[in-house]
Amino acid sequence: MKSGDSTTIDVPESAARSTSSKGKAPAVVAAAPVPRAAGGKRALAIFDLVLRISAIVAALAAAAAMGTTEETLPFFTQFFQFQAEYDDIPTFQFFTIAMAIVGGYLVLSLPFSIVCMVRPRAVGPRVVLLILDLMALTLTTAAGAAAAAMSYLAHNGNPNTNWLPICQQFGDFCQKATGAVIGSLIAGALLSMLVLISAMALRRV
Amino acid sequence: MKSGDSTTIDVPESAARSTSSKGKAPAVVAAAPVPRAAGGKRALAIFDLVLRISAIVAALAAAAAMGTTEETLPFFTQFFQFQAEYDDIPTFQFFTIAMAIVGGYLVLSLPFSIVCMVRPRAVGPRVVLLILDLMALTLTTAAGAAAAAMSYLAHNGNPNTNWLPICQQFGDFCQKATGAVIGSLIAGALLSMLVLISAMALRRV
Repeated sequence: MKSGDSTTIDVPESAARSTSSKGKAPAVVAAAPVPRAAGGKRALAIFDLVLRISAIVAALAAAAAMGTTEETLPFFTQFFQFQAEYDDIPTFQFFTIAMAIVGGYLVLSLPFSIVCMVRPRAVGPRVVLLILDLMALTLTTAAGAAAAAMSYLAHNGNPNTNWLPICQQFGDFCQKATGAVIGSLIAGALLSMLVLISAMALRRV
Repeated sequence: MKSGDSTTIDVPESAARSTSSKGKAPAVVAAAPVPRAAGGKRALAIFDLVLRISAIVAALAAAAAMGTTEETLPFFTQFFQFQAEYDDIPTFQFFTIAMAIVGGYLVLSLPFSIVCMVRPRAVGPRVVLLILDLMALTLTTAAGAAAAAMSYLAHNGNPNTNWLPICQQFGDFCQKATGAVIGSLIAGALLSMLVLISAMALRRV
């Protein structure tokens, strides 16, 4: 009820209602489309909530999978044990933190999504969700892409720069890290759909 | 004028105004509120065009900077010359291609942006721009983040995996690649503003 557009919708509606008692034209004009628009927006909001819960699962699963990625090789010398952990590679550490932040944000955004479902006309929560979802999308994409680049390097190495692949030795490590990257890509796809839904829901206000 | 809601905005409001002057509504109906809403949307569209041109510059500069990144060291042995080129690192190659695609898309999107400026009420071009901008944003972020991760690795190496830094030898190479990454981050920031502008412009339809 704060911003310009929703006011323009509401004001004439009440004007229409008051004039209808006096027998003026616009009485039925404003009344008809309201429930339809609200219904469409409510469907969008329910879809938003479902996608959001899926994105929470994907983001937290990616964070957990990467955070528990480690492998200890079954042989060791007197002074040295061969072990790989996710925080041996700073990019994987960034990935874990970023995906945990995105998952936490998505959990905290659930109330906003529910508000949008209960009151489909609310503009404020929609705009907040749109901006924050866009930031979460960017963070997810960045973390996923950086971890994918590192994962590729760990698999294939780079002969030009003498960076040797480590996945021959640490196969499980690499496999688990790659799984986490795939989880983040799914979360990114869901988040970009959430951004589009928020934009479409704004359009119907 | 297509969607149900904007009709409800226009009709009763001007109807309320015109009922005071005469009896019949829809004659002046659409005329009154149009300039205000269209003016706001036109300002948004001009801002969109300016941001888009800046993003073109940033994206193409990033692609060109990365694509011309190479360094030949001033000493060589009988059999070997020390040379680094951007396509020695596959991630940098991906970065160049991705930024060139984004730059090309942004150039091709200029007509759509101009259509949105000339006809601020058009919904179709806005939705197209929103979806394609979102894809370009994701691509830019992914390319920038992956190249940033590689650039960090080239600078600092990773003792845990025996990947040695190469920037001591190839200082100019690393510097130029990092500059290209910064260009892509600027392009990403501009693109996320473009997505928000498209969403806001849809809201005012």
